[in-house]
Amino acid sequence: MKRASKKPLLRALEPKPIGILGGGQLARMLALKAHELGLKISILSENADDPAAQVAPLWQRGSLSSKQDLGNFLKTCRLATFESEFLDAGLLAALELETKTPILPRPADIGLIQDRLTQKQLLEKHGLPTAKFHKVESADEAWWARMVLGGETSPSRSAKNRSAREPAPVVFKKRRFGYDGYGTFVIRTQKDMEAFVAAELTKKSAHGFIAEEFVPFKREVAVMLARSSNGQTRLLPFVESFQQDSRCLWVKGPLKTNARFTALAAKLGKFINTVGYTGVMGVELFETERGLLVNELAPRVHNSGHYSLDALSEDQFTLHLKCILGQELGEPKLNAKGFAMMNLLGSSTVAPTWRLPTDARLHWYGKNENRPGRKMGHINALGATPEGALAVVQRERRKFEV
Amino acid sequence: MKRASKKPLLRALEPKPIGILGGGQLARMLALKAHELGLKISILSENADDPAAQVAPLWQRGSLSSKQDLGNFLKTCRLATFESEFLDAGLLAALELETKTPILPRPADIGLIQDRLTQKQLLEKHGLPTAKFHKVESADEAWWARMVLGGETSPSRSAKNRSAREPAPVVFKKRRFGYDGYGTFVIRTQKDMEAFVAAELTKKSAHGFIAEEFVPFKREVAVMLARSSNGQTRLLPFVESFQQDSRCLWVKGPLKTNARFTALAAKLGKFINTVGYTGVMGVELFETERGLLVNELAPRVHNSGHYSLDALSEDQFTLHLKCILGQELGEPKLNAKGFAMMNLLGSSTVAPTWRLPTDARLHWYGKNENRPGRKMGHINALGATPEGALAVVQRERRKFEV
Repeated sequence: MKRASKKPLLRALEPKPIGILGGGQLARMLALKAHELGLKISILSENADDPAAQVAPLWQRGSLSSKQDLGNFLKTCRLATFESEFLDAGLLAALELETKTPILPRPADIGLIQDRLTQKQLLEKHGLPTAKFHKVESADEAWWARMVLGGETSPSRSAKNRSAREPAPVVFKKRRFGYDGYGTFVIRTQKDMEAFVAAELTKKSAHGFIAEEFVPFKREVAVMLARSSNGQTRLLPFVESFQQDSRCLWVKGPLKTNARFTALAAKLGKFINTVGYTGVMGVELFETERGLLVNELAPRVHNSGHYSLDALSEDQFTLHLKCILGQELGEPKLNAKGFAMMNLLGSSTVAPTWRLPTDARLHWYGKNENRPGRKMGHINALGATPEGALAVVQRERRKFEV
Repeated sequence: MKRASKKPLLRALEPKPIGILGGGQLARMLALKAHELGLKISILSENADDPAAQVAPLWQRGSLSSKQDLGNFLKTCRLATFESEFLDAGLLAALELETKTPILPRPADIGLIQDRLTQKQLLEKHGLPTAKFHKVESADEAWWARMVLGGETSPSRSAKNRSAREPAPVVFKKRRFGYDGYGTFVIRTQKDMEAFVAAELTKKSAHGFIAEEFVPFKREVAVMLARSSNGQTRLLPFVESFQQDSRCLWVKGPLKTNARFTALAAKLGKFINTVGYTGVMGVELFETERGLLVNELAPRVHNSGHYSLDALSEDQFTLHLKCILGQELGEPKLNAKGFAMMNLLGSSTVAPTWRLPTDARLHWYGKNENRPGRKMGHINALGATPEGALAVVQRERRKFEV
């Protein structure tokens, strides 16, 4: 039975599974939603007790940086996706050609987004507002960028010749492999700057840095974008995302939007469509005096979208699977007027204990070791307002010794 | 760390899993919710591609009627539950003692409920309204029961001596192993009766029958009851359950309740608490001119409660797991004013194909063979009214060739 390619059919007992590269919590939640939808899935990860491997009988041991492991895995899949953008995009592109197993989002999009410099250039190219930035590959360029971005009017490119007055703070970010504050350096003083340059820029950094103006924000905002390979796009509600020690602690929403949000939403929709991206994408934003600025893109399901598991008619994991399968997307509807998500972050190395929440829903990741700051699970609650829901997850959080 | 037994703690990395006896769709949905909650679970079933085995890496091959298979399985579990009451309750009770692995709901409760005669007696004992019935173990008793329940004023116990006028219809039900209309015989005419007796009562039936008065109902109603081993009870919303060919086709709710529902709800809460039952229980009802009558109890999660996966803050599978773990139960809240569930019943032996629904959520069971009438999955939708939600699942149903 054949139908128009815009409406691909699924079938029971597909001979080959959808592959997921990686075995962490994002892969686990993708796997659980795939199970619900009757989609056969397979996991590639290093340990049989990885979060996703615990919930997926189809699992292959392997390294995401091994050409052989990736190739062998892809051959067994009809389609593959991933839970982290820290992959070798070039290798994936080559293996996609070799194995003929499509990888979605496309390796080219991973490549552009995983590098903060090309990501910034992508944002600029598509007219998305973002903090000013410069490429930094040497100590001299770092000093120069600090002067320019810190507000000096006529900076010298020479480190020797710098102004005595402290410029405004700047932020240096490693171009690759940064997350949860790792690889990010906020420079406020001359001393900060000297320490940063001495530690990071004496030898040539493997991937270099970008320097960004420091953006004083009122709050951090996030939104999930989605595009199905059939061309449909969706934007989930804007949410506030609160960080503690550079790690997301909680999310609440939906935010009351204004013309600035509406304008940005339109730009994001146009952006994802023009790029032809396939899948779900996390967008982190700063809300500032001068408007909304895009801070960071993540080409995958994202922590700031976990609320959707319980608060929306179509969660981000289901949405992502639909996108990569070219299925028609639903219109995400709210299950309540307010929602909140609280991460369960480790605070010790003692194995966690808990009582199950009564007014929130638990999503536990099954990690076999607790560590301070580690994301061990999250809880979601609904309420009459975002603040009401946040109060519930804050209360329910106390049932966990994590 | 110890706490009061009323608030048992859970912990990451429990050495032993919760066992589920059976590998069908109910076990699958229990397993998926256990994964969400970080509860390690293990499945006992006959085939590695059974619905639940497909989503649970901890799986043991075995027969639910083999003492050895059950015993070996129970030894590996800290607690066990089941998805079907068609088990040998005596064997389970013996194995529970032998292996010291608690089985919940208790084998004694399974025993009472799995036999329609003792189930009816249980209902009577606790003052729950139910259709009049008689035990039937022979052809003579069957003829006699038909006379009594069919409205004859002075029936003869002898089959020879019966009235020429047809009595009202009666229903014969096998005391054990009946489901979805199997084992149920509606007798309207003398000819029906003769055929039934000839086919079923010439040789002594292994478990016998009960005869019930035929209840003309306005609609069928269902409700899920729950009791945690900590003593808390919950009653989910009353729903209408629509059967086609004796199989549940759809459910919609919540029903507008009146004093009759409120009175029954109170009786059910008292019943489950007095019995000291632990777990979730499905209650099927007839709404008749003379009020609500309990038709059948099921000591497990139930098809009529599947809507709860998307329509309630606490679904029946999560609720069941909380009950058997002695966890505090939440107050189930509606995610919308109306909801509906549509079963995806097989209509052929061709492997199903589908497009994913946009306005409903799919729960597919992963069965490896399609058969007419077989429950292959279900879809849930929310709406402003139960009828609105039903219209959505009826429309979304068309995306499935099952």
